[in-house]
Formats: sequence, C-alpha cells, structure tokens
Amino acid sequence: MLVVMQENASPEQVQRVMDRMIHDGFDVHRSTGALYTVLGGVGRNTDFDIAVFEVLEGVKEVHRIGSPYKLASRGFRPQGTVIRIKDVEIGGNNVVIMAGPCSVESRDQIERAADIVAEGGAKVIRGGAFKPRSSPYSFQGMGEEGLQLLRHAADRRGLLVISEVMDAVQLPVMLQYADILQIGARNMQNYTLLREIGKARIPILLKRGLSATIEELLLSAEYILSGGNYDVMLCERGIRTFETYTRNTFDVSAIPVVKKLSHLPMVGDPSHGTGRRDQVPPMARAAVAAGADALLMEVHHDPDHALSDGAQSLNPEQYFELMKQLRLIAVAVGRSI
Amino acid sequence: MLVVMQENASPEQVQRVMDRMIHDGFDVHRSTGALYTVLGGVGRNTDFDIAVFEVLEGVKEVHRIGSPYKLASRGFRPQGTVIRIKDVEIGGNNVVIMAGPCSVESRDQIERAADIVAEGGAKVIRGGAFKPRSSPYSFQGMGEEGLQLLRHAADRRGLLVISEVMDAVQLPVMLQYADILQIGARNMQNYTLLREIGKARIPILLKRGLSATIEELLLSAEYILSGGNYDVMLCERGIRTFETYTRNTFDVSAIPVVKKLSHLPMVGDPSHGTGRRDQVPPMARAAVAAGADALLMEVHHDPDHALSDGAQSLNPEQYFELMKQLRLIAVAVGRSI
Amino acid sequence: MLVVMQENASPEQVQRVMDRMIHDGFDVHRSTGALYTVLGGVGRNTDFDIAVFEVLEGVKEVHRIGSPYKLASRGFRPQGTVIRIKDVEIGGNNVVIMAGPCSVESRDQIERAADIVAEGGAKVIRGGAFKPRSSPYSFQGMGEEGLQLLRHAADRRGLLVISEVMDAVQLPVMLQYADILQIGARNMQNYTLLREIGKARIPILLKRGLSATIEELLLSAEYILSGGNYDVMLCERGIRTFETYTRNTFDVSAIPVVKKLSHLPMVGDPSHGTGRRDQVPPMARAAVAAGADALLMEVHHDPDHALSDGAQSLNPEQYFELMKQLRLIAVAVGRSI
Amino acid sequence: MLVVMQENASPEQVQRVMDRMIHDGFDVHRSTGALYTVLGGVGRNTDFDIAVFEVLEGVKEVHRIGSPYKLASRGFRPQGTVIRIKDVEIGGNNVVIMAGPCSVESRDQIERAADIVAEGGAKVIRGGAFKPRSSPYSFQGMGEEGLQLLRHAADRRGLLVISEVMDAVQLPVMLQYADILQIGARNMQNYTLLREIGKARIPILLKRGLSATIEELLLSAEYILSGGNYDVMLCERGIRTFETYTRNTFDVSAIPVVKKLSHLPMVGDPSHGTGRRDQVPPMARAAVAAGADALLMEVHHDPDHALSDGAQSLNPEQYFELMKQLRLIAVAVGRSI
Repeated sequence: MLVVMQENASPEQVQRVMDRMIHDGFDVHRSTGALYTVLGGVGRNTDFDIAVFEVLEGVKEVHRIGSPYKLASRGFRPQGTVIRIKDVEIGGNNVVIMAGPCSVESRDQIERAADIVAEGGAKVIRGGAFKPRSSPYSFQGMGEEGLQLLRHAADRRGLLVISEVMDAVQLPVMLQYADILQIGARNMQNYTLLREIGKARIPILLKRGLSATIEELLLSAEYILSGGNYDVMLCERGIRTFETYTRNTFDVSAIPVVKKLSHLPMVGDPSHGTGRRDQVPPMARAAVAAGADALLMEVHHDPDHALSDGAQSLNPEQYFELMKQLRLIAVAVGRSI
Repeated sequence: MLVVMQENASPEQVQRVMDRMIHDGFDVHRSTGALYTVLGGVGRNTDFDIAVFEVLEGVKEVHRIGSPYKLASRGFRPQGTVIRIKDVEIGGNNVVIMAGPCSVESRDQIERAADIVAEGGAKVIRGGAFKPRSSPYSFQGMGEEGLQLLRHAADRRGLLVISEVMDAVQLPVMLQYADILQIGARNMQNYTLLREIGKARIPILLKRGLSATIEELLLSAEYILSGGNYDVMLCERGIRTFETYTRNTFDVSAIPVVKKLSHLPMVGDPSHGTGRRDQVPPMARAAVAAGADALLMEVHHDPDHALSDGAQSLNPEQYFELMKQLRLIAVAVGRSI
Repeated sequence: MLVVMQENASPEQVQRVMDRMIHDGFDVHRSTGALYTVLGGVGRNTDFDIAVFEVLEGVKEVHRIGSPYKLASRGFRPQGTVIRIKDVEIGGNNVVIMAGPCSVESRDQIERAADIVAEGGAKVIRGGAFKPRSSPYSFQGMGEEGLQLLRHAADRRGLLVISEVMDAVQLPVMLQYADILQIGARNMQNYTLLREIGKARIPILLKRGLSATIEELLLSAEYILSGGNYDVMLCERGIRTFETYTRNTFDVSAIPVVKKLSHLPMVGDPSHGTGRRDQVPPMARAAVAAGADALLMEVHHDPDHALSDGAQSLNPEQYFELMKQLRLIAVAVGRSI
Repeated sequence: MLVVMQENASPEQVQRVMDRMIHDGFDVHRSTGALYTVLGGVGRNTDFDIAVFEVLEGVKEVHRIGSPYKLASRGFRPQGTVIRIKDVEIGGNNVVIMAGPCSVESRDQIERAADIVAEGGAKVIRGGAFKPRSSPYSFQGMGEEGLQLLRHAADRRGLLVISEVMDAVQLPVMLQYADILQIGARNMQNYTLLREIGKARIPILLKRGLSATIEELLLSAEYILSGGNYDVMLCERGIRTFETYTRNTFDVSAIPVVKKLSHLPMVGDPSHGTGRRDQVPPMARAAVAAGADALLMEVHHDPDHALSDGAQSLNPEQYFELMKQLRLIAVAVGRSI
C-alpha cells in the first residue's frame, strides 16, 4: 500500500496515518519529497479496505500495490490450469462446448436436446433444475427430477453435466448428478455459497456478475480457491452498460484480460451475454477468436416453445451451422474443437 | 404490448407473430399503415418476456405498454403509503432517521451507539448481525447474540430496530428481534428470499441493486407485495457507473422518480451511496432536499476502530452537526425531523 | 408515436395531449381500453423530442414507433452498401485492413510504416496530421506537411489514405490528400462538421462516441446521408463502462447489431477499443469473427518511441502475426483478406 | 509514478523499464522486496501516458502518484476561488442562480424571460444563440441577433449574461455580448476551443462531458487555467449510466467531490441533468443542499411552445416556487440566495 499525503499535511496527520498503518500490520517506510510525503506500507495482509486510509485527515490518495488476489493470479501457476473431468480437458488445447436448454422441461425435451448437442460436438450438456423466477406463476424448474433426467440423457451420449446451484442447501443433491457446478451471476458474491463450494471437490464455473469488475470476479475465485477447491473456471456473460439494444454488453475483452491476469480457464456465455438468438453466433465466434477455453450456450429443439429463455436459445440448425464456423476459428487460433 | 413489423415483413411472418401472441393469451389488433404493420396485444398477463417476440422473423421492434408492476405503482394508491411501526410513521410528514453502526460489535459499542443515535434524533437504530465477508478471516458478525444486544440497546431508548436478513433461514430469528427487515442490494433479486419476506408480516426496507434500474427495483417490490406484505419501503444506496472517485454513484434522482412512479416510501442511504465519510453529509442533505422519506446512515462512536465500514461511518460530532442541517432542510421542503 | 395516459387521466388532460400531437403534425387515433387510454400518432416528422410529450400532465409513457433514422436503416438498402474507392471495396466480400501510425511523425517514419503496412496486406494506410492534445507542450501533429508525406508514402505502395478531419476549416486541405475522412469519436455529434461532410463527395469513416448508443451513431450517419453523401462507414472504437482494466470496453456486439440495423459497412478499431497493445490481437480477431467489414489499427515501426499512442500500437512482428490469423478467421466466416 | 514489476520479471526487463523512465525524464528509485520490485519515478512532467509503461514487458501495474492537474487542485488555492463579475460573486457566500430559456427565440420571448428570471431572484440570464441541431430543419438559433436581444433584456434588469460558445470562430462576437461563456459538455475536450478560451479574459463555465470522469473535468479546467484564464467555474449536468428513466443521471455527488479536490466554484445544471421538468425542482434543491455555488436552469414563459428543450424548462410558477424553497435550503447550509 502507498499513502500519498496532501501537500499541506501536518506532521501530526502524517504520524496518525503511520500509527494506523502499523496498527493494521504494515511495516511503514516514509519518503519525504519536495511535493509530497509518501508512506509505503508492506504487510502480509491483503484483505484490507483502502477507504479506511483514504478518509484519514491529510491523506491525498491511497494505492494498493499488487493484486488483492494471489491464488487466482497468473503468477501462481504461470503455465495455466487445465481442469480434467473424465476425458474432457478445460483449459487445454481443445475449446470445449457446453450446450443445452435453459431449463430441463421434460424427459422428451432433454433427450432431444442431448441428441442435438452431442451431434454438434459439444462435450457437456447444460440444463437448469432450480429456476426461481420473477413471477410466482412462472415455471420454477423440475428440481431433483430434472437433474435425474439430465444425468440420464447425458450418460446415454457420454456427455458431462453442468447445472446451476443457487443455494448451499441444494449442494448435496447437486453433487449426486452434476459434473460441473455453475454459480450464477447474481451469486458471484454470495460468500455463504462460495464458502461451501470451496469445500466441495467438484469443478466450478463461476459467472461474472452483471456489474462486477474483472478484479472482483478474480476475488470471488480466490475465495473458492482459498477453500481448497482449485478446479475453478470463470465465465463472461455480459455486463450492464448504457447500451440497451442488447440486454447486456458481452464483454469479449474480458476473455484475454482474464487469461493474462489469471491461470484459470475462461469461458464465454454468448446466450446470456446478448439475450438475442440472432446475436449469439457472431458473439460465440468472437469469444473463440479472442481465446475462450470453452463456450456455454443455450440450445433448444424448439426455442419458440421453450419454458424459459427461448429468445436467446439457438435452434438445432443454427447450432450446427455455428459449430462448423467455430471449428474453423479454433484452428485459426491454434486450437481445435 | 405493441409489435412493429419490418417494412418488408411477409404476410406469413405477420401471421406467425399473431399466432404466437394469441398463444400467449393476448387479444390482437392489427393495424396496417403505409410504413409499418403494427400488432397491438391486450392481455391480463404482465409477466412475459418481450425478447421472445423481438427475435421472431420480420419483427422490427416490440414495446411493452404500461408498467410491468401494478401493486407497486403510484396509481394503485395515489395518496401514498405510510408505514406505521409503534409511534413512528415512514412515508408521512416526518423524515425518519435510521442510524447506527454497520455491525453490532459488542454490548458496549451498541449501547454507546444507541445513546448517540437517540440523542441526535434518530427513531430507528441499525446494526448488522450476519456479515459474510470477502475474507474468511474478517469479522463475520455476532449472529443472534448481536440481535439481542441491539434489541436491548434500542428498547432502553425507545428506538426501533432495523437489521439485514441475508437468507430465508435467518428469518425466524430475525423476526424475534427486528422491527424492520432490510434486504441488501445483492439480494434485491433473490426470489427465494423475496417470497418468504412476502409471507411475513413485518415492514421491509428493500435496497436497490448496484446495477438495478428503478423499474427492476419496483418489480422486486411487486414480488413482495404480491405475497401479501404491503409494508415495503425502497432504498437508494448507490449505483455503479464509470466514475471511480466515489465507490458508487449515489443516484439522488432515484428518490423523486420513485416517489412519482410508486406509492411506497423512499429511503436514501448516503453511507453506502458514497463509501466515504466526508461525502455522507452533503449527500444526506441532498437526499432530504430531493424528497426522501427517511435516511439510513452509518454512525459509530469510534469509526477509526470499527470492525467494518469504518470509512463510511460518521463520528458522533459529524452526526450531530448533520442532524441540525437536516432539520432545516426538512422544513424547506415542508416536512420535519 | 404512442402516448399511454395514466389510469386516472382526466378527459381534459387527454384532450390537451391530443391537441399538442395535432399541433405537431400528427394524425391521432384514440383507443380507450379498460386500463389505459392510448393515443397513436402518425406523422411524417421523425425529428421530434418524445420528452415534450412525457412531461405533459396525465401522460404515463411515450413510445417512439419505428426508428428515428431512415436512410441509414437496413430497410433502405437491404442488400447492403459497398463503398468502392479505386480498386478497394469496403462492405463486400473482402475484409479491408487499414493500418498505420497514430500520427505522421516524419518522412522516414511514415515511409517505414507504409512498407510494413503494405507488406502485411493492408489496403489503406492511416496517419493523423492534426493532433490537438491535452498538453500544449505535446506533439500537435505535422499538419499539411504530414498529409503530403502520408500521400506520398501511400502512393508508392498503392495504398489508400485515411486521416482524421477535426474541424470544418480543415476540409479543403484534407480533400486534397485523403481517400477516406475519419470523424473522431468526440466529433460524432459535431453537427457543424457533419453538415459540411454531408456535402462533400468523399467516403467517411464515422466513429462511435465513447458514450454514444448505437442508435445515436446511426442518427449521426443519417445526418451525413441526408446531406447527400452516401459513402459512410461506421466504426466501433470502445465505449465507457465501469470496467477500468482496459481504457475502454470494445463493444464487439455493436458490429453484428449495426449490420442488422443498417446497410452501412461496419469497421472495428481494436487499438482505441482497448488502449493496450497486448489486447489488440484478440480483439482484432474477435471483430472479424463477429462480421466486421474492415479493421482500423495502429501499427508503428517502433511503438516504444512513437510520439503518440505508443501503448496501443502494434510493432511489425505483432502485426504480421495478427494478419496471418485474421486471414484464417476471415475464411471461417466466408470472407477473405 | 510507481511501476510494480511482475513476480517473475527478469533483470533485463527491469532495466528496460528503468531506461524508459529515465528517457522520459524521471529520476528512478528502485526498491526490491520479497514479492515485487518497485520502481519509483519522480519528475516534473505530469503530462505522460501511464499506458506506455503498462505495456512494457514484465510490468504488473503502474500507479500515477499525485493528481495530473496542479492549477485546478484545491491545494493551489486552499481558500477557494471567488469569481467577481460586476456586483456578483460566484464561489462566495451567495448561491447564484442563472436562469433563462434554452434559446433566444424572439425579442418578446427573451424580454418576458428576463422579467420572470429577475423577479425570481436570479442574477444571471442564460440563452443560446447558436444551436446546431440534429435536424437541419430544426431551429438553429438566432445567432448574433439573439445575443443582442439577450444583452438588451439583461441590461434593463441589471442581469449578467451567460451564453454558450461552440467554436473558436464565434469567440469575437460572443465577447461583445456575454459576461460568462459556457463551454458545453460535448466540447469539454475540444482543445482548440479550450486553448482560445484560456487566452481570453472572461469568466468561463465549463460543463462536464456526458461520460467524463471528475478527473477529466479537472484536467480540462487545468488546460484553460494554464492558458492564463483563472476565472473558471465547473458544472455538473448529468452523466450517462444504465438508468434510462431520466435522460441522464444528475451526479449530485460530483458537487462536494469537486469542492474537495479543487478551489474552483461548482455549478449544478438540473435541467440538462434530468431532462424532465418535473425532476428539476428536487434536483435543484439537492444541488444546493450538497454545496453548489450556483445553479444553471432553463426557465421559459411558455415551455410547451419553446423552440428547444421545452420538456426540461420550468414555467414561471414552478420557478418562483422553487426559488422560495432554494432560499430556505441555502440558509440550512449557511448560505443565502
């Protein structure tokens, strides 16, 4: 930490800031220049709030030196993390496609979805079982029965299963059926859930919150990693900006930035990232071109009659066509699908 | 709902959109103009996703007519809602001040806080008991013991108690101690929690999410109201924008906008809205000047040693001085404190 | 236009709104439903401010029907616009690369740049001549001499020239040297400049403002088109969001959205879009994968010593390597470079 | 400047960064810690781009130490600047009201406006003469004739005149008629205009750009101050955020933040800040409560028939009522109107 004092800060103010730094566990180095007095603080504690120092009398500005996350940083594992689940590797040379419906709706629907998804080349099938929705009259998901149907459909085609856990109480049942647990954007900073997930031994896909910075995403990953679960992949799914044509702004640049700052695999979700079926293919291509390790996409055998998220689900033809393009783009960036 | 077709939409495309509208329960009125074919849809269902129609072939744009919330709209109760709790009225002529520390830290601390808060003129004391934090090593709150201390401190000075409920499982214990339950910004769209809260019979303070629009805030309020709990107040606590000097941008204009769109009382939280102690007084004054029915503020007897949120907590002198100014401003807008 | 009245609007309020609509040239159709009175207004005037109606007494909401731009809309020329300049086509099957330094710095520098740029396969060289900068002591550009050097360097390799015009007074001199005029992000709504450009007969590259919506970009294009200049291409160069790791957020999704809404060619500028050299290649690939018709990129023979924008300029090796990848991605989306 | 090297940075990389710092005029102090090597750079040059260092090999992060503006900083003139124009002081104890129509439309209109404005207690009348608008068919302003009418109307009531200068070529004519020149939000970084304004000897009101940070606003002020014109006041007029109910988000918190960071007077413009007449009074009150030194507001004798900005103009009754409230609020914050 570096504290820059105001030009006219009094000796007492400087001393008071130093005392507070020492109290909080920092070794303090004072440097007095022509313009500013600068206090450098070195300590092992990375979990401090710089605002506490910013509001002290006489302080001009405070800089945190070094990232507030360690285990999630690229420097911790420069070669990058590869998550292995059965015969699938995420973070390696292959770009892994995860596809399927927003929600498991019925045995017939999820079996059809599995056929389509597997035929197109995806390795993982997605499907939600718990869907608390804005209206109490809307479809709320099939619960555990949905997970059973999803697992069954996946196993018949050799697919892995990813599904979202929304609350720590769902964890035991989710662990019975899923290969990868998804943490949704709204739960990115649900520390109760992150703590439980950190104790579990199952790969996690952690989605970036709608208004979360990349640093905040990495801090949430750090929380899981520090619990002992190292199989974490991150996922860009759109941020909120002033532009309203698309539901969210799919921040493609987060993909190479995360790859630079962290060793964790990075996934793109162009379905939630755009909210519109017609924008999913170009953004899926962009994500792979920008270096995504995997994609998470919504595909439905009949999107116009999907019980949720139909507007952003690809139909089978769109999905097959997109997979052809993605294979070529993967090659262009030295990878394969 | 109003669907505007593209200039070159085919008759089949128009028919397909009409069929879908009828399928979803709308009566459809078709109007063919020189430029556009427009399909008006009238129905009782307000819980539909306009994106489903936007992505249909031949559709140019879709407008939702009328607000998606009813119970929360000003038209539902034009005279405005006044929430009565013991002898305190929120939404009436008095501007109610809720103040206290971020967290209950100890008996001594909360007793001191209660003294200060009551002396300054606040009617409600705040204090958090459950504090899941970004670091597992940080103070996590005192739990039920904290609530007991808070209740005791409040009762001795005739104050009401507000505290945050973070999970539906905490509800039974919270109901024993609190007069008002706070739903935090990260839980604004936690529908599991909103559903349980809607069944409870206790006043709720619902905070706007960091990147939630005013409409989304009103939709979350609608969710609680539709559960049967009509004692809901809303709270502006800062939104995320590109400006980084303040932690958040305290959107003062949300106060008069909510008062216009809804009958529910509107509260301002300048502590979280700014994140900096020195910005709290001007923003508290601005909130009252803009028409806030209440303020929620962090006050600590010794902010420099607070276990959480010290940077944004007022010290007693700042709080007393601010209360004097607020009384004058309340008069300027025809109210009192 | 569609005006929805409040539930409790009085007959006088409805009449007053209708009178205002008629006064402003609309034919008005009134529809009285169980919940709302809705006033539909049809008129030829598309240049009205809906806020004028929103603030009338008794009005609940106002919707603009149809886009406020016509000449720029996809419906005006469904097959898309191809801009032909000498033997280069922008908007056709080829993805056109425009590359070069931020500023023309010297004869030697621009000749080297032209060598590199042409060798890599770009068809257009870029270079700024007028560089009003934030410090009066910084390099302000070489002015007309820079344009002469740029033209000369381009002609020797058969390249086209693009350069930025910052003020209408520069137009005569720019027209002598450039093949394409660039309008910078800060001038996107400089109507004085747009009007003059609309009268000129030279292709225009119009950059999206830092906080401009896609609709506002298309409205600025409409302004130029309505002046009679139909050779307009649009350019995404990054928008301002809450994320601060990258200088701007390069909104890749604007590329397919503009291609859907408009017939005009769409260009990506990953250099300004990211502000960091290491992020330019992935974002350039993403832009082409998402359907960009052209790219505008900063390339310098020695970026570390560039007089401006060195941090976002590619060095020759990075540029050559990127061009190889872009060729493969172009093929993946059915195009060529 | 402080450059933090990556954990694994090589000695050559460190040396290369040091060389570049020295080349750019910095004295370099190297500090090697257990985790990081940190390079401190001290120099007189404040106009450098930290991105140049961020993209050097081996660099983890770069911090600018101290603000990039000097003349505009509070430390330069701790007691604050008071701008005196005839008998009016801006930045002193009085809160100065500047009011009037968006545009000068006719002699009759501006005379009526002057009557209303003066009666309510404003000291300055506003009115635009040059109005380049998005449609070539819209009213473009009365030009110099408008300025003559405005001056005449002002002089009869002893009012000062503020009007916007949009281009350096308008400067000579503006200087004949205006007492204060307004720089609009779109011109906040028009350095050509800022340079000319810096040479002039007339008070300036500089508006914050729609997506400009407070630091960028202060940098533009610095540009004018460094030209020798010290009579600069700053103005908040709304920023662009994700919220769409109001046209812009009027960032009230910018007022106390600017007052803290700078000695320059701070003005609020609630008319442009909200875009809606019904939101102007609460936001005007909030601005004064938050410490604004002056307000700039649109008032029209008949807003429904204003040629521009009618939706955000107050009518006379609203203006008189608001002025009463503002007087009380001014007292609450120890000032007067």
